[in-house]
Amino acid sequence: MSYRKVSVAVIGANGYTGMELLRLLHFHPEIEIKTITSESQKGRKLSDVYPQFNGLFDEEFVSLEEFDDKDVDLIFLALPHGTSMDFIRQYEGKARVIDLSGDFRLDSPEVYNEWYGSEHLSPEKLQESTYGLCELNRDSIKDSQLVANPGCYPTSAALALAPLIQHHLISDELIVIDSKSGVTGAGAKPSEKTHYTKVNDNFMAYGIGTHRHTPEIEQTINAITENHYKVQFTPHLLPVNRGILTTVYAKTDSFIEEGSLKTLFEEFYSGDTFVRVMDSAPTIKDVKATNFCNIFATYDKRTSQIIVVSVIDNLVKGAAGQAIQNMNIMFGFDETLGLSHIPVSI
Amino acid sequence: MSYRKVSVAVIGANGYTGMELLRLLHFHPEIEIKTITSESQKGRKLSDVYPQFNGLFDEEFVSLEEFDDKDVDLIFLALPHGTSMDFIRQYEGKARVIDLSGDFRLDSPEVYNEWYGSEHLSPEKLQESTYGLCELNRDSIKDSQLVANPGCYPTSAALALAPLIQHHLISDELIVIDSKSGVTGAGAKPSEKTHYTKVNDNFMAYGIGTHRHTPEIEQTINAITENHYKVQFTPHLLPVNRGILTTVYAKTDSFIEEGSLKTLFEEFYSGDTFVRVMDSAPTIKDVKATNFCNIFATYDKRTSQIIVVSVIDNLVKGAAGQAIQNMNIMFGFDETLGLSHIPVSI
Amino acid sequence: MSYRKVSVAVIGANGYTGMELLRLLHFHPEIEIKTITSESQKGRKLSDVYPQFNGLFDEEFVSLEEFDDKDVDLIFLALPHGTSMDFIRQYEGKARVIDLSGDFRLDSPEVYNEWYGSEHLSPEKLQESTYGLCELNRDSIKDSQLVANPGCYPTSAALALAPLIQHHLISDELIVIDSKSGVTGAGAKPSEKTHYTKVNDNFMAYGIGTHRHTPEIEQTINAITENHYKVQFTPHLLPVNRGILTTVYAKTDSFIEEGSLKTLFEEFYSGDTFVRVMDSAPTIKDVKATNFCNIFATYDKRTSQIIVVSVIDNLVKGAAGQAIQNMNIMFGFDETLGLSHIPVSI
Amino acid sequence: MSYRKVSVAVIGANGYTGMELLRLLHFHPEIEIKTITSESQKGRKLSDVYPQFNGLFDEEFVSLEEFDDKDVDLIFLALPHGTSMDFIRQYEGKARVIDLSGDFRLDSPEVYNEWYGSEHLSPEKLQESTYGLCELNRDSIKDSQLVANPGCYPTSAALALAPLIQHHLISDELIVIDSKSGVTGAGAKPSEKTHYTKVNDNFMAYGIGTHRHTPEIEQTINAITENHYKVQFTPHLLPVNRGILTTVYAKTDSFIEEGSLKTLFEEFYSGDTFVRVMDSAPTIKDVKATNFCNIFATYDKRTSQIIVVSVIDNLVKGAAGQAIQNMNIMFGFDETLGLSHIPVSI
Repeated sequence: MSYRKVSVAVIGANGYTGMELLRLLHFHPEIEIKTITSESQKGRKLSDVYPQFNGLFDEEFVSLEEFDDKDVDLIFLALPHGTSMDFIRQYEGKARVIDLSGDFRLDSPEVYNEWYGSEHLSPEKLQESTYGLCELNRDSIKDSQLVANPGCYPTSAALALAPLIQHHLISDELIVIDSKSGVTGAGAKPSEKTHYTKVNDNFMAYGIGTHRHTPEIEQTINAITENHYKVQFTPHLLPVNRGILTTVYAKTDSFIEEGSLKTLFEEFYSGDTFVRVMDSAPTIKDVKATNFCNIFATYDKRTSQIIVVSVIDNLVKGAAGQAIQNMNIMFGFDETLGLSHIPVSI
Repeated sequence: MSYRKVSVAVIGANGYTGMELLRLLHFHPEIEIKTITSESQKGRKLSDVYPQFNGLFDEEFVSLEEFDDKDVDLIFLALPHGTSMDFIRQYEGKARVIDLSGDFRLDSPEVYNEWYGSEHLSPEKLQESTYGLCELNRDSIKDSQLVANPGCYPTSAALALAPLIQHHLISDELIVIDSKSGVTGAGAKPSEKTHYTKVNDNFMAYGIGTHRHTPEIEQTINAITENHYKVQFTPHLLPVNRGILTTVYAKTDSFIEEGSLKTLFEEFYSGDTFVRVMDSAPTIKDVKATNFCNIFATYDKRTSQIIVVSVIDNLVKGAAGQAIQNMNIMFGFDETLGLSHIPVSI
Repeated sequence: MSYRKVSVAVIGANGYTGMELLRLLHFHPEIEIKTITSESQKGRKLSDVYPQFNGLFDEEFVSLEEFDDKDVDLIFLALPHGTSMDFIRQYEGKARVIDLSGDFRLDSPEVYNEWYGSEHLSPEKLQESTYGLCELNRDSIKDSQLVANPGCYPTSAALALAPLIQHHLISDELIVIDSKSGVTGAGAKPSEKTHYTKVNDNFMAYGIGTHRHTPEIEQTINAITENHYKVQFTPHLLPVNRGILTTVYAKTDSFIEEGSLKTLFEEFYSGDTFVRVMDSAPTIKDVKATNFCNIFATYDKRTSQIIVVSVIDNLVKGAAGQAIQNMNIMFGFDETLGLSHIPVSI
Repeated sequence: MSYRKVSVAVIGANGYTGMELLRLLHFHPEIEIKTITSESQKGRKLSDVYPQFNGLFDEEFVSLEEFDDKDVDLIFLALPHGTSMDFIRQYEGKARVIDLSGDFRLDSPEVYNEWYGSEHLSPEKLQESTYGLCELNRDSIKDSQLVANPGCYPTSAALALAPLIQHHLISDELIVIDSKSGVTGAGAKPSEKTHYTKVNDNFMAYGIGTHRHTPEIEQTINAITENHYKVQFTPHLLPVNRGILTTVYAKTDSFIEEGSLKTLFEEFYSGDTFVRVMDSAPTIKDVKATNFCNIFATYDKRTSQIIVVSVIDNLVKGAAGQAIQNMNIMFGFDETLGLSHIPVSI
């Protein structure tokens, strides 16, 4: 049997997530990029549209219509929400799929309908898909045909909460999750909300009580111990390009000794290279442009609250990086392959 | 009786708060700036140190030693924490004082000791001082000799909470307050934490569970209805110069009809020009460089939580502007005099 | 004769220039805003669209069709380039007009055609209009019916060059003008170029050799001494909201004594409150949100070059502020009326 | 003969340049980092001081006194200007040295004295050292014992000018170089100038006519054809962390056909992977966090000027990256080894 690299396609490559996938995949030693598609840029060279790729990656975007999945082992779907669902419904090839949209993250078509405001087009596939939060679902990811890559906010929130949930430390049904994200989370399409002069030197909350990542977070943390926590999730828009910082507030009835939270988190994540448990509150630049999630947990005796702060790069651990981590798991590579850069923190 | 303007001195004028006082006072029609002091800049012209004042305000800094309070009606103390206390302890003149430090905000010397980590030098003055949150304490401010100008975070948090407290809407003893502030809140002194490359494109939490504004917020909201709320207060550092956005989370057992929160806030602040109750979540630029506080309150039926978002400019409503508002109250001027600029939101 | 305020209309108020006019006009003691028009926002209250105006300016936008110039003394035209021309061509009322577009700045229809790429629709009005660079054309502005408010780059460049030109200090026909502007200069319309993630932490040149402000600068400086200088003008896009810094390079054959350039500039601008001649290189924040232009000139003996650095706020001295300064001149007010704020430099 | 990796030491590793060297060296497949020194951080683990290195590079800083150059093949000197000179003067070991300070860049002790304001301590070593601008001096670098790594501004300016100089296209003795740099160029030490609130939303020129990179640029371009160009060099401070954009203005008497400049640059840099000749003006993010230099050259027929815009990352091609490129040349590796990342342009 002859060795060959894993062949991948990036469908919908002309967006922040697609770009970031290409930036990272380019240096993955075990894969080969066969096709990149974009309807708006088809026929143009990637490096003509995005000068950073000049001389490094000069392939052409093709239309999805021209895409032939023969000889492709893995498809990264970087299509908009709703469009992924449509692709999957019709897709009959053999390639495995990692979908970076929100279409296959929720288990229940009803919950999907409630938060996304429309019927799910492919409810049976919804059941088949695996939620690709690597640190929590490694085993199911391994053999999955369709991995739903987690949302950026849910990744930062669930990693901050998982050890507490697992150890039954949270005594109140309601958990407050206050998240702050960079602008790339809002996508590449120009809009008033993302105009430079609107964001620069500014800060705002949005989607209070209505953001679609709310049920995704609840589903993820409640799956750990079959519990029924609710989360009050508020996203905010930071004047930075990349990065999410999530501050979690959870009531506890347990007495918590100094330092024991760190030990608990370290043990929980002992096999997880990308989760780094810290001695002090992290900053979003501590993980910039990498797949790391830095976490700091502390207990306030005065108020019986546990506060956890986690940071990720929303385009990497919150999107493209975790997708590659999922690929590494699915194809039996070392989980960190192609992902072990030092953060660009300066 | 002949008319004359109110004579003021700014002690410790060479810091962000001092500068901002001078920027705003310059256009107050009823006052006259007699003296500005700075130990580090004494002998230099303000406009030589800060070119923005060139041609507009060319006075010299003098040393505090040279300051003579004769003919001064009002002293703005813009000294560092701890230093104000020392000044007040020794001050025997007749001028009224607005202190912008944290020294006279707390009622209890014990609480001061606990959170500030040192003995209060002037506990009897601590009792005499008035907490200058204008919208809540207007009447006591009027005749006060010593007004403690509130902290920036407490201003944003207390204004967000006061109507809910007043109406007994909060059913849980613990309130979560997640605040985000611009860098001017950390003062003008260069440090690693405020180096441009550290802050730019970055974001972090700090002082979790230990920030000195925690007891100030608790004292302020508990004074409204003699209650015993505790707050879990977490400040964060935003990559912007000015502005605080505070997100408040409070449990309620009351049933709250749509729109009723807005009405409740509007009625509570009906006489308060500087508090603007909004229909949607505000941004920090909506109030930039002005004394406004914009507030949005909403109720999440699913979780029984009230979420309030408030924004202020930390240097204005959170410091120099509120000090001038206090002055206006103390000297019988229209409360908005010299303070009714339109925000520099673009 | 009864006193009344000057009545003004702002046509095309829903853009950065229009907004900035309203921010500044609101506190002008001698004017009254009668009408604000916007086609896209007609029927909405200004303060509903722009929350910064809430409680301060709650007028409604109307359509231009509804605008009646009866009882209006002055029209500020804040329409896009090309649209202003169309308005002026058809306008038959008596109100005086200050046009903030580029339509009436150039004297020659041929030069207009060459740089703007289309025929001028109203060449006869082009002759009648006055170029409103206040410091240079004060006398003609006084009685003008139609003032063409200067471009932002030309304002910063011409003020930096005028004293040198006047004194025949420049010996080479070619002057290099390297300008850097904030993003508001590119207008309020969302685009890829002004997307936050594209501008933030970035910097670029644009319009090299082709920018329309090139002939405007040449016309302005050559009018001073009927000379024929050419300028090599390169604009750049800064990751800031407001502000222009222009660096001018001009060869001289004269021997220049230390300090004499400052004196020369000071004398030239001795009657001009808004031009501040500085001892060291200014920063764009030294004039932020105000009508000032700070200038520093220096001579490099080694190279026989004069280097001048000037800074303005592109929305104020580069647009709305200068328009108000023009109004003050036209209506006989003190030139600084409504414009003497201290910069928001922190 | 057994194979072993090249052993390197980083002396003065606790600064932006040192950090960036470590970030990049960590993934160089052919080297091994033996020692990192820092006087202020000695005894601490790198990853305790800089959390981005956590789990990736956990070595300890040692004092320079403890450094033993036995078994070290190469020393990267990342010491402050003046300190490097002192080290080199005393160093008697065999390891080759790449010095990232300004101490050994100029050929002439007199010129050094004039621009740096002090005597050179090691003038004989000044003669022996090689100026490490890889694209221009590859051959001499190969066998050098002491390479002076170029300054950031000179790298961007010389690469923009070299093809024009080589082809004798510049007809005026004076070349204008207007450069704009990110804040990391000013070093890691906190100061008023680099305080966040001073830099954010701001922009300024500095060192007009006096910056030390002036003679370095002149020496470098005049070495190409033994010419005597003078440069008028003005650096500016951008509100970004990384990146330099340089705009060059040069008079030409030659007639230049459209497109011919691009061809000329492409041919000049045909063997240079890191120089990318572009079709339009580059932005600093097109090369962010990488060793690329993107260049665009254009000719303005109207003014007979050639304008060239070049961009580099000041910490990579302007410092650590070029140092590694020099190392690759010195040790016979492929010049791009460890340096071929795709820019972090989003």
